[in-house]
Order: sequence, then structure tokens, then C-alpha cells
Amino acid sequence: MSKVFFDSAISLDGYFAGDNRGPENPMGGVSGLLHQWMFNQRAFWEYLGVEGGSEEGNDGTYIRESIKRTGAFIMGKRMFEEGEVTWPENLYKADVYVLTNEEREPWVQQGRTTFYFINDGIHSALEKAKKSANGLDVRIQGGANVIQQFLNAGLVDEFFLHLSPVFLGSGIRLFDGIDKNKYQVQISEVIPSDTTTHLRYKLMAK
Amino acid sequence: MSKVFFDSAISLDGYFAGDNRGPENPMGGVSGLLHQWMFNQRAFWEYLGVEGGSEEGNDGTYIRESIKRTGAFIMGKRMFEEGEVTWPENLYKADVYVLTNEEREPWVQQGRTTFYFINDGIHSALEKAKKSANGLDVRIQGGANVIQQFLNAGLVDEFFLHLSPVFLGSGIRLFDGIDKNKYQVQISEVIPSDTTTHLRYKLMAK
Repeated sequence: MSKVFFDSAISLDGYFAGDNRGPENPMGGVSGLLHQWMFNQRAFWEYLGVEGGSEEGNDGTYIRESIKRTGAFIMGKRMFEEGEVTWPENLYKADVYVLTNEEREPWVQQGRTTFYFINDGIHSALEKAKKSANGLDVRIQGGANVIQQFLNAGLVDEFFLHLSPVFLGSGIRLFDGIDKNKYQVQISEVIPSDTTTHLRYKLMAK
Repeated sequence: MSKVFFDSAISLDGYFAGDNRGPENPMGGVSGLLHQWMFNQRAFWEYLGVEGGSEEGNDGTYIRESIKRTGAFIMGKRMFEEGEVTWPENLYKADVYVLTNEEREPWVQQGRTTFYFINDGIHSALEKAKKSANGLDVRIQGGANVIQQFLNAGLVDEFFLHLSPVFLGSGIRLFDGIDKNKYQVQISEVIPSDTTTHLRYKLMAK
């Protein structure tokens, strides 16, 4: 059955993004610090269809598996606006459902990825994303606030953290105001690497 | 050379302690959630000199190594006051330096551990603790605020996190207001287990 997951890089102090986020400054400028492990890997650049990345290790295997399972994405309006101008056209190879209050026609990026704008809530977005995923899994892409909403609604089945060995000091935390009574959490996998630690957790409704 | 380290259990959302901490409610009542991995291990109870713990695994090896290296402890007044009444008499088997604003004569707990009260700052406490450790390492025990002070003063050589698979939702975060420009952080060890993930990091001054 189609699962709902998220898969996020965070700093040691738990930040998902830095300060002063915006289209001019995606992720508050901290992507290089949190995602270096990914940029190093050939698997990531293969996915984008361009040359790049010199390494092939645990991290690369991890990236391939994550890509293979994802049949649709859900993200917040703010994350969408940060990326709309700057994302490579083939970053998302499946439908993306954007949570927003506005009405907007679907946007087909360069004849490839379709972004649908959903203004009737997270349950509706999830229903549509699951349908589109057609048996594959739905990835809650972010931002942190959207992941928190899905967590607190009890809708997440598992998640991956990439714990980067860096302090950011301030920014937007991935886990803020999480309902402690919602889930029993189980460690399901730990993949060490030199540049990050991949941690996989299963969530069971309490 | 004597190293300075801390060794803390935290929740997935980064909490070191819960809300409403105090002598009546040490750690805000979350110790069972963060330290279950430790309470399960025979090594911990052996250290206390009492029967207990059924498991012997990675976690136990880890506990033994951490105990062996520690020659002195530093902690804050608040942590001390939380534990003064409730700690088993042999929890700290080395001198403990308590940061406080008060003047107080050393307290010798049950003829064993001596607690020294230091009121001239963290550098002074560290100097005394290092001397007492006599070549062994100094452990910054907590609370979070004391660990943050030592981190931001550039005094920490390495640290261990025990990342417990639980959300606390609120409380006191271990890493709050960390100076992002102080250290280069390096992952030095990852020890997986079923009940927590042990993560070891080296800090190099930038």
C-alpha cells in the first residue's frame, strides 16, 4: 500500500532551513551545508540527467531508493515559490501537489512535471497525491511547517533524516510543536557516512 | 591530553529535558523516555553496584567506555538541585564541579563524591575539573544551558548524542543559540541500536 513519508536533511541543532528564506534566498542559503552529502553523489546528478558527483557509496544507494519509491510530492506554497524560479526543470519527476490558499491552474514545468495547486487542505492534497502515485509512495517535501501538519494529523508512515554535522544556530526547525502523543516511533535503519548520518524511522499510530 | 566532552540523550525534536523541571520533577519527567536504552543495560547497573539490566550490547560497551574516560564532571546549579535529593549516592564516581552564583562549602555525598561549588565562571570550573581529572577527561554533564555555554566558548573537544526515537513536543532543547562559526564538526562514530542511536562528533576550532 502506498506510504506517506518525508525525507529531510537537518543540522545537529535541528534546522531544516536558515533565516530569511525566499525566492531570492532558497532555504535561507543553507542548502550547501545540509545537502553536501547529496551533491557529492553521482546518483543525484544521474537523476537530474547531467554529469556530476564523484562519489558512489551508501548515500548514493540511499538516493536511488528514495527516488524509486516516490510517486507524488506534496509541498507548501512557500517552498514552491522559493523553487519555482530556480529548480532544475527535472528535479521532480512526478506530480507535485502544492498547498495554497489561492486558486491557480496547474502549471506544467517545461512540458514535464505538473504542479497542482490545492486549496482545500492537507487531506484533500494527500488523497489526490495518492491517486497520482498509483501505488508508489507520497513524499511530503516540506517546508517544515507542512511536515509538522502531516505529522500532527497522524498521516505519516515513516521518515528519513539526514543529520548533517553542522550547527546553524538559527532558522526554521523541522520538528517544532510535534504532538508527542500521536505515534510510537521505531528506529528502522541507520546508514552511516562521512558527510551525514541517514536515519530511518517508522511511525505507528498510538 | 585531557579532553572536554558532553554526552547527552535527546529526543528526535532535540529536547534534553521536559517542561516544569525541578527537584520534585527531575528532567521534567522525561528521563524514562530518553534513557531507557541505558536502564536496559547491565553495564549501567554494574556501575551503580546494584543488580539490574538484562541487556549487553553496543549500548553497554558504550556506557563502559564513557565511564572509564571521565575524571571529573561539570554541571549547572539547577541540574545539581534537581539531583541533590534523588541521585543514588554513587552516581558520580569523580569530583563534580557545580556552577553557581552562591558561595558554598564542598559537599561530600555519603563519604564518596565531592561536589565543589564554583562561582567564578566556566573557565575556572574547567581548570579545576581538569586538574582533578588528572589526565582523564572532563564531562560537561548539563543542563543544556551549561553545555551551550561551553560550546559557545569554544571549549568542547567532542560530544556524544543518544538520539532517542521519541518526540517530546516541548521542553528544553540541547542545542539552542549555538554559535555556528565556532567549530568544524566531524562525524567520528555511529553506533546503531534498537532503542537509540549513538552518535559521536569531533569538534575542531574554526
